[in-house]
Amino acid sequence: MCKGDEMIGYPNKKNLHSSVSFDNHTSRGMSLEDDLNDSNAYYRASNRALIHKKPTPIQVVKVDYPARNAAKITEAYYKTPSTTDYNGIYRGKPIDFEAKETRSKTSFPFSSIHLHQIEHLKKVLFHGGIGFFIIRFSHYNETYLLDAKFLINLYENGTKKSISYNEVKNHGSFIRNGLTPKLYYLDNVDSLYFKEEYPNEKK
Amino acid sequence: MCKGDEMIGYPNKKNLHSSVSFDNHTSRGMSLEDDLNDSNAYYRASNRALIHKKPTPIQVVKVDYPARNAAKITEAYYKTPSTTDYNGIYRGKPIDFEAKETRSKTSFPFSSIHLHQIEHLKKVLFHGGIGFFIIRFSHYNETYLLDAKFLINLYENGTKKSISYNEVKNHGSFIRNGLTPKLYYLDNVDSLYFKEEYPNEKK
Repeated sequence: MCKGDEMIGYPNKKNLHSSVSFDNHTSRGMSLEDDLNDSNAYYRASNRALIHKKPTPIQVVKVDYPARNAAKITEAYYKTPSTTDYNGIYRGKPIDFEAKETRSKTSFPFSSIHLHQIEHLKKVLFHGGIGFFIIRFSHYNETYLLDAKFLINLYENGTKKSISYNEVKNHGSFIRNGLTPKLYYLDNVDSLYFKEEYPNEKK
Repeated sequence: MCKGDEMIGYPNKKNLHSSVSFDNHTSRGMSLEDDLNDSNAYYRASNRALIHKKPTPIQVVKVDYPARNAAKITEAYYKTPSTTDYNGIYRGKPIDFEAKETRSKTSFPFSSIHLHQIEHLKKVLFHGGIGFFIIRFSHYNETYLLDAKFLINLYENGTKKSISYNEVKNHGSFIRNGLTPKLYYLDNVDSLYFKEEYPNEKK
């Protein structure tokens, strides 16, 4: 709650990215995030969906007041998120997903998925939400949507510590690239989770 | 969309504490947030719902790396959230709400609701989610759930800049207090938004 906050515009657009760009992501990791943020902005503007990236959780330790009512955080640390990065509403249904990028040419390592993200997505499915992962293989610049149930099952019951590029190709849904949106991932969501309304669509 | 309306919040000390998840329980603004966080933790643990408070958006400007892998934020500012504070999933439906507290004995001032929160909740309703406000009158220690559509209509078309305590009593749904959860607000959600499944419940 930020009841009664005074607000002023922040002119420097460069800094708009800084709140996420330090979030232990590589620059490649950023690009998928940027693509998704731009796509979600487009989907919101076109009233197709209401999906946001959650703010990065930060533990504030020290705040200075250089001026009256001016709060300047001078010591803070990144916290581990307890949920996935993205959630929202699409066609009346809760949507929740995590996005990850790998430079590997051969496989996506499960080590880059946090256990709490798995636990969270299991709860999303339990409560009737739509949950998935968006995985990009940077080397091929290919992005796939993987159903949460499928990946969680591999993560928990599989014998390997990763999912191969070919498995992702075979079991995932390829996300088309574009300009607006950068990633047409809701088309994949339509064909995967709203089949009855799109009987002729194929995965 | 976040990028368009980036702002920096300058909360005063009380609001500062209420905008970060942080050990201080002194301010009244904190107590409703604490009650809701505790209630949501209980509802998650009991698998009744999956609802979280979103992290407070913070604009990170400078980060030091005193040690390898140790990121210390040394300059950051509070940003205006572009959404409400709470969202999640309940009985397969998207839930989204904002919580506000007032010390006034007579009315809840609309000035403590940000326009972007109104805009966001309108989108929540448009996309088929359940949206509402939780408003506490600290003086009476009474907490009410107010349907988003009702309050937005007053906010946009009403002649007054506030909603009176009596209007909240009459049009809102009183939230029962307890120990676990501190606020039984999902019972109100049941009776308001899942009536067909609870035909005998009263508001």
